Amino acid sequence: MSLAPSLAPALNSPLPPPEALPQLPYVSRLLRVADRSEPLVLRSGESLERVDVAYETYGSYDGTNAVFVCHPLTCDAHVAAHGPGDRPGWWDAMVGPGRTIDTDRYFVVCANVLGGCSGTTGPTSPRADGRRWGPGFPAVDIADMVAVHRRLLDALGVGRLHAVVGPSMGGSQVLQWLLDRPGDAATFVAVAGTARLSADNRCWNAVARSAVRHDADFRGGHYAPGAGPRSGLATARMIGHLTYLSEPELERRFGHEVSGPRSGPAAIAPYLDHQGAKFVDRFDANSYLTLLDAMDRFDAFARPSVLGRVPEVPGVLLASLRGDRRFGREHSVHMARGLAERGVRAEHHHETETEAGHDAAILELPQLAARIGAFLSAAPQLPKDGRRRSCTVG
Amino acid sequence: MSLAPSLAPALNSPLPPPEALPQLPYVSRLLRVADRSEPLVLRSGESLERVDVAYETYGSYDGTNAVFVCHPLTCDAHVAAHGPGDRPGWWDAMVGPGRTIDTDRYFVVCANVLGGCSGTTGPTSPRADGRRWGPGFPAVDIADMVAVHRRLLDALGVGRLHAVVGPSMGGSQVLQWLLDRPGDAATFVAVAGTARLSADNRCWNAVARSAVRHDADFRGGHYAPGAGPRSGLATARMIGHLTYLSEPELERRFGHEVSGPRSGPAAIAPYLDHQGAKFVDRFDANSYLTLLDAMDRFDAFARPSVLGRVPEVPGVLLASLRGDRRFGREHSVHMARGLAERGVRAEHHHETETEAGHDAAILELPQLAARIGAFLSAAPQLPKDGRRRSCTVG
Repeated sequence: MSLAPSLAPALNSPLPPPEALPQLPYVSRLLRVADRSEPLVLRSGESLERVDVAYETYGSYDGTNAVFVCHPLTCDAHVAAHGPGDRPGWWDAMVGPGRTIDTDRYFVVCANVLGGCSGTTGPTSPRADGRRWGPGFPAVDIADMVAVHRRLLDALGVGRLHAVVGPSMGGSQVLQWLLDRPGDAATFVAVAGTARLSADNRCWNAVARSAVRHDADFRGGHYAPGAGPRSGLATARMIGHLTYLSEPELERRFGHEVSGPRSGPAAIAPYLDHQGAKFVDRFDANSYLTLLDAMDRFDAFARPSVLGRVPEVPGVLLASLRGDRRFGREHSVHMARGLAERGVRAEHHHETETEAGHDAAILELPQLAARIGAFLSAAPQLPKDGRRRSCTVG
Repeated sequence: MSLAPSLAPALNSPLPPPEALPQLPYVSRLLRVADRSEPLVLRSGESLERVDVAYETYGSYDGTNAVFVCHPLTCDAHVAAHGPGDRPGWWDAMVGPGRTIDTDRYFVVCANVLGGCSGTTGPTSPRADGRRWGPGFPAVDIADMVAVHRRLLDALGVGRLHAVVGPSMGGSQVLQWLLDRPGDAATFVAVAGTARLSADNRCWNAVARSAVRHDADFRGGHYAPGAGPRSGLATARMIGHLTYLSEPELERRFGHEVSGPRSGPAAIAPYLDHQGAKFVDRFDANSYLTLLDAMDRFDAFARPSVLGRVPEVPGVLLASLRGDRRFGREHSVHMARGLAERGVRAEHHHETETEAGHDAAILELPQLAARIGAFLSAAPQLPKDGRRRSCTVG
């Protein structure tokens, strides 16, 4: 799609007025990708007349080397540190100079998802009347997140990508992107992703959601900024966090045989409390529910896809992790099967180096990194499209 | 141990005054097994100067045929219906006329555990000053529950048992009983029990406990009778309940492929809400925490046992269930190993007929029932001890 001319120059623009960035110290840039003249029509049929996207970029764009990284449920655009003095990114293990997604070689873009609370429009954002969306924010689908990513790239002047890569919910965005716009990238890489939640996944999400909603401080989502269902959200996070860790990993950290100030059985409650408190300080409850709902509704293969009808078949790599009780091996097998039915043969890498579980998707895993690195390098380079554009580190 | 004479006649006594039975419509009988003259000294060193036990009996005692059934975490003394018109028991699949634990043949005793809230002394019971124990109820160990069961049997005039049987936390009581008093029964049967919680078990318990404690209505445990942390306790129950069910079982009930008024993805939230609400209506939060804590502290093989020093080695059957993510196969393997180190060879039955998970421990499983039935029948019958006593159905 083409964007209104008024939006295009936003690349490398200074930060927008503070009201648009309520509590986000670490957004590098913000770009408006939908406004009244070009609203974003969601899958649900609802429209958003204003969508701002918080994004970060790494490396320089040469017209052929763009890699879009899609983030997991509660991460943000800060996929990697912008140098030694910067705060850590959520996927420093994979993205950076000399890393698998080498920012000396690739132009990396990462954006906070639609419905998130780290800069991109979501329940904490102002509506047209200046009040926060809160619980009235429309239902968002994974496909809507992808549509916003695509608008961002259009505005940045990035056409076809070398790759779209993402772990966990990021992997679901990768799959949706492949199904909706297979011509958008040479390669698609989903790490520990899913095409559809299992009944078990949904059940845990239901308990998490219930814990948030039944917290008296939730007030139907109408809590004041900075307030909200702290204990319910902390419980929800603890539940989620435990499903990210494998039983062997928990035993290694908290089993009877280990001891230390932060290990062994006595460390469990403080550890989980800390996970809960840390999360509550950085995440908004309405946004959390919006994203959980998006995952619950996600069913990648339920709708028709153009995938079987495009002449150029992209390369697809699906990676699953041992001990992953969130989106384990069978989720990648299911994705591969669905793609095969649409004429695309996906490679499936099952990581055996770790048994740390879903959490390992963003950890340092040399075997997985090597596989992804080789996959990205083997992909045919895009022809230069003459839209070379230099971007400084954001 | 011998009980004070004043306690013995309580057998078949009428129900005690209402204050001792605050909200329990279905206690059959109540017996005082500790009083000021014979207090119960807990493992922690604390003493209880009054312990009442709610129990039910089935069948007739002939001096040789007593079977004690230990109940899981949140069950009670009502192990089976007392006839066609009675409300269902929690283990009707196993206990009753013609069933595996055949009440036409065995004299079955089941008692609510110490610390529970279904009639036996626990946090909802009155202290000496008439006020409820509440959060001040002493820490209870599995060994304390067993000691109370033993006092109950003494008071009932039951000496050596034919068998002690129990699923889940009941299985842990069985193991503790075996370690503390191996001469008490000819056979010990633990179904889906554990000698010690895994790190994963403890983590889920920690989240459940946190949900209860952080509910504003918990008030440090000082809530009024009938009030309390409803939403936190419901969340805790949902968490527990999900760990009792296997992934395949959840998929069978709530997967995409199934539909119906009570199945498929849309049924998940109502189902879990119902599980939570049902539990909150019947269980006390302080009691729940007391029992969770007992399980967390339980470590059967950490203390010396007389087991290796008794001449007569009882028969031990350990059963584990496929898909059990609470106390699965490895828990029974661990119990068998610990017993082997103490000179007792336990039989281990791994049930493959179901993959319903931990919950299946109290369901109808013909293969498991047959194995337990054969095991009970093969055990040497006790010599008649002349203490025959007839009990009517309670």
